[in-house]
Amino acid sequence: MIKVAIIGSGNVARHLISVFEKTEAITLVQAFARKAQNLSDLLPSTKIISDYSELKDADIYIIAVSDDAIAAVSEQLNFTNKFVVHTSGSSGLDILNPKNRKGVFYPLQTFSKTKAVNFREVPFCLESENEADFAIMEAVAKAISDKVYAVNSRQRQSLHIAAVFSCNFVNHLYQIGNEICTENEVPFEILYPLIQETADKIKTLSPKAAQTGPAKRNDRNTIEKQLSFLENHPDRTAIYQLLTESIQKNNV
Amino acid sequence: MIKVAIIGSGNVARHLISVFEKTEAITLVQAFARKAQNLSDLLPSTKIISDYSELKDADIYIIAVSDDAIAAVSEQLNFTNKFVVHTSGSSGLDILNPKNRKGVFYPLQTFSKTKAVNFREVPFCLESENEADFAIMEAVAKAISDKVYAVNSRQRQSLHIAAVFSCNFVNHLYQIGNEICTENEVPFEILYPLIQETADKIKTLSPKAAQTGPAKRNDRNTIEKQLSFLENHPDRTAIYQLLTESIQKNNV
Repeated sequence: MIKVAIIGSGNVARHLISVFEKTEAITLVQAFARKAQNLSDLLPSTKIISDYSELKDADIYIIAVSDDAIAAVSEQLNFTNKFVVHTSGSSGLDILNPKNRKGVFYPLQTFSKTKAVNFREVPFCLESENEADFAIMEAVAKAISDKVYAVNSRQRQSLHIAAVFSCNFVNHLYQIGNEICTENEVPFEILYPLIQETADKIKTLSPKAAQTGPAKRNDRNTIEKQLSFLENHPDRTAIYQLLTESIQKNNV
Repeated sequence: MIKVAIIGSGNVARHLISVFEKTEAITLVQAFARKAQNLSDLLPSTKIISDYSELKDADIYIIAVSDDAIAAVSEQLNFTNKFVVHTSGSSGLDILNPKNRKGVFYPLQTFSKTKAVNFREVPFCLESENEADFAIMEAVAKAISDKVYAVNSRQRQSLHIAAVFSCNFVNHLYQIGNEICTENEVPFEILYPLIQETADKIKTLSPKAAQTGPAKRNDRNTIEKQLSFLENHPDRTAIYQLLTESIQKNNV
């Protein structure tokens, strides 16, 4: 049994608490929340603490708080030489106070408050200062997920940027597509199968090989027609032009 | 039984031929291919013609050729006042020769040569000059798909542009994500669940409500770090900046 303590009560902390409570190989020793009631729907009150001095012994302390708060929380822990990790994709090991052994336990998925997560499908990106600690966090990750990767800080930063392009920016393009549909009174749902197929296709073809459309075909006639359709929307026009150029430059 | 003739031997034509041959309510009378051997794996030679004068009577003639060729093909048909449709998202009714009754029979999906298509999930966007013809094409579409929509030319053009944003451009962002991963020696597959979740989420939340990430949070610290990571790639930097600004402007 691996003893885990969680610090935090946000989305990531709550989802981790739920899955650890259901996982035999893991004992969730305690969870820390500044406001105990934020976790009272998930845990018995005996397991919730709001004072760092009450933290009991654990094999791994998982700090699942916002990026800005990680450094301060790691400093407030009043013990030394224990294994302390954070869950942030955009922060390095060095954000953690050096009085404890450091690691990163980064689940690469968006967590919504209300939506259940199938953790077995969630990739965990792990990094630690030493191998023995890596083995602990690897055992924790493998107890809940089938997708566990060793990822160093530079790689994790690149993954986070790749995720901004492939998810946050992608979602913004969905938003533009949605707005164009709404303005023209066509249901956006007509595009769901195509959106789904576009996301599926890259699992069997490289995105470069999967590219289609007017930019890829260099269909100037359609491109000009579409730009004239967009002419009252300078933001959309700028995005259309930049992405069209980038497709043409990078798909030859 | 509705009698259908198909003109063309590209991806859309081939997928339609396959599904019509399996559909009881439809009789595929003939398919036209300039080179008969292009369809010989799908149809008996008696059903393949390469001379327009051999086209037999049908309730609907579906021209499934590249956009550039639609006008010429519709002109070469040597009959009049029959129901002739094209399958293009980016062309209007008026591209068809007026000697026949016009319509558009547009399946909104990407068709790859090798990948099977579940037509029941493919949205069909239909338009015709008159109601009686609409009823014919609606019966054909409903025989193969559960998702049939009446969509006029302006709406179809807007859908096509929305699809360029939500699919072609999205795929290009996947390509950039993939390249960043490859350059940093992390497997792109780590991002598959997040890409999938991003595509799924918009079916239950609006894209605007689903937006997350540094741009949405206005996390200047992360944005600056990511821009400095990208500094040797002016194309990626320009896309990052433009989409970040657009998210911030359109998500307040």
